[in-house]
Amino acid sequence: MGNSLSPLTLSIIGFGAIGQGVATIVQNVPQIKVVAIADSKGVALMPDLKDVLARKRGGQPIANSNLTALDVIRTIDHDVVVEVTPTNIHGGEPGLTHVREALKNKRNVVTSNKGPLVAAFDELTQLAYTNGVALRYEATVGGAMPIVNLIRDTLAGARVLDIRGVLNGTCNYILTRMAEEALDYDQVLSEAQDMGIAEADPTYDVTGIDTACKVVILANAFFGRSATFADVDVTGIDRITQDALQLARQRGFAVKLVGDVQELTVSPKLVPIGHPLNVSGTLNAASILTDTAGEITVAGKGAGSIETASAILSDILSVMRDRS
Amino acid sequence: MGNSLSPLTLSIIGFGAIGQGVATIVQNVPQIKVVAIADSKGVALMPDLKDVLARKRGGQPIANSNLTALDVIRTIDHDVVVEVTPTNIHGGEPGLTHVREALKNKRNVVTSNKGPLVAAFDELTQLAYTNGVALRYEATVGGAMPIVNLIRDTLAGARVLDIRGVLNGTCNYILTRMAEEALDYDQVLSEAQDMGIAEADPTYDVTGIDTACKVVILANAFFGRSATFADVDVTGIDRITQDALQLARQRGFAVKLVGDVQELTVSPKLVPIGHPLNVSGTLNAASILTDTAGEITVAGKGAGSIETASAILSDILSVMRDRS
Repeated sequence: MGNSLSPLTLSIIGFGAIGQGVATIVQNVPQIKVVAIADSKGVALMPDLKDVLARKRGGQPIANSNLTALDVIRTIDHDVVVEVTPTNIHGGEPGLTHVREALKNKRNVVTSNKGPLVAAFDELTQLAYTNGVALRYEATVGGAMPIVNLIRDTLAGARVLDIRGVLNGTCNYILTRMAEEALDYDQVLSEAQDMGIAEADPTYDVTGIDTACKVVILANAFFGRSATFADVDVTGIDRITQDALQLARQRGFAVKLVGDVQELTVSPKLVPIGHPLNVSGTLNAASILTDTAGEITVAGKGAGSIETASAILSDILSVMRDRS
Repeated sequence: MGNSLSPLTLSIIGFGAIGQGVATIVQNVPQIKVVAIADSKGVALMPDLKDVLARKRGGQPIANSNLTALDVIRTIDHDVVVEVTPTNIHGGEPGLTHVREALKNKRNVVTSNKGPLVAAFDELTQLAYTNGVALRYEATVGGAMPIVNLIRDTLAGARVLDIRGVLNGTCNYILTRMAEEALDYDQVLSEAQDMGIAEADPTYDVTGIDTACKVVILANAFFGRSATFADVDVTGIDRITQDALQLARQRGFAVKLVGDVQELTVSPKLVPIGHPLNVSGTLNAASILTDTAGEITVAGKGAGSIETASAILSDILSVMRDRS
């Protein structure tokens, strides 16, 4: 790893919306130098970021070498691997191999990819420790909403007793619209799909899988669990009726899809309307119950490529601080 | 300063509710050793924390030496001065002298005392820099609600454009009760006084002075201002009518006492009922508007001796991390 005067060198593995967001943001940080960018077709070595971003947006190939992503991770000397390939919760590949190989080669890893952490949290944190490098994953939970580093650094003086989170913007949008406009689930889902808030196949979000992955990561990070997806008891929002929402509302509650990290559950729960966890629209929120600091709630945008890239940059900057 | 293997040594200057909270919490942290505690009557050197806390609660003197607080700060070799004397916004004393002398003697300072920072922010941050020590003050704004360190560390990847905060629990309690119960200001104030939520003389809170001090600290810390209390345009909540609250409510807003850090204003403002800043009761909240991370809102208990002590402990732990 370089000393604190040389720029921090990084590779970006995965060049979808988030990878492009990272490239866009680090363009303006002179202390950071991108040595390689890999997309599914190939690798751009020592890329001119402006040029590569323009090519990608124009649908042109970015590769200027015969290397693969794994070649970059294994053989190019650099400080940080930014792993931002799409999440695959069935085994975590290709992200898992990328992260594993990066750590084995003593490179720090910053990732937004839930797959590897859900599949092999203990193995990867152990690998990072053994190799004396950092594995940072603020962007895997809540996008730009700080939670992992908030708990680890800012709330270091308190013991965390539980974390309860509204961690999926698509679900929260659907539940908010259903409650406010008295519309049925199917109507709102269809509207959300039109607006790009829900995917064409919304299963991953609405059945609670995405939230469960975040619960697994937080449980392993802060409660010493070795949980995987199978350990979480998951109920989605796809069977919630208008009647249930209105009944809750009359009694002063909103229905939210809540992940409870200590319980390892994801399910629709009643949240008092005045409680800070009760955020609306696509917002995410998490309430952190502590012994001495009481309950701290944080809310913010849970998705968006620039917002997620911002969380990644905060992790990159911590790696930079730790080496100085 | 000791090396990372020896315990971190600290003095507690001020032994009211917060000082006692700090002593209570650090009792359980083996890496921290309290070398002196000063109250208004004298100094306990190398105190047995359990014994000193019991004496204080029983109304007995704690002093076992002829030293003063300033003697401790100047002459006893230790790592961190925890300055938790009461806030005095007219000149900042005695806290200002305590903090200044601590920094000049190359001791790190952790404080919950707004007075010195409002009176002499630039001088003190410069002194800390020149002497190579830390000046940390998470507990001055929002009690246990993390904001200073959240912005500095966790949101380091984003540029902060503005901070708007509901930063006084007494005001927020009064406004919440007025709106929910349709009671007048005087009725709710009197109730809050009975409950210990408002002081017998509530001026400092209800006229916005406390919120303005917090605005000054955040403006100086994050927007490079050299503001003092006189630079803030302050309107309190003591003239708010029931009519105004109900009118706002009908239109979908709550009235909150909002400190706007970029504007340097404190005034009752309309906050949309669904916005995360709209917290109820004695809660505090702050919305941090950033360039790339969007708007992040954090909420938590703004007061309480153990909660404030918890924020102080998180600052002490950062000092500890930074020396290792």
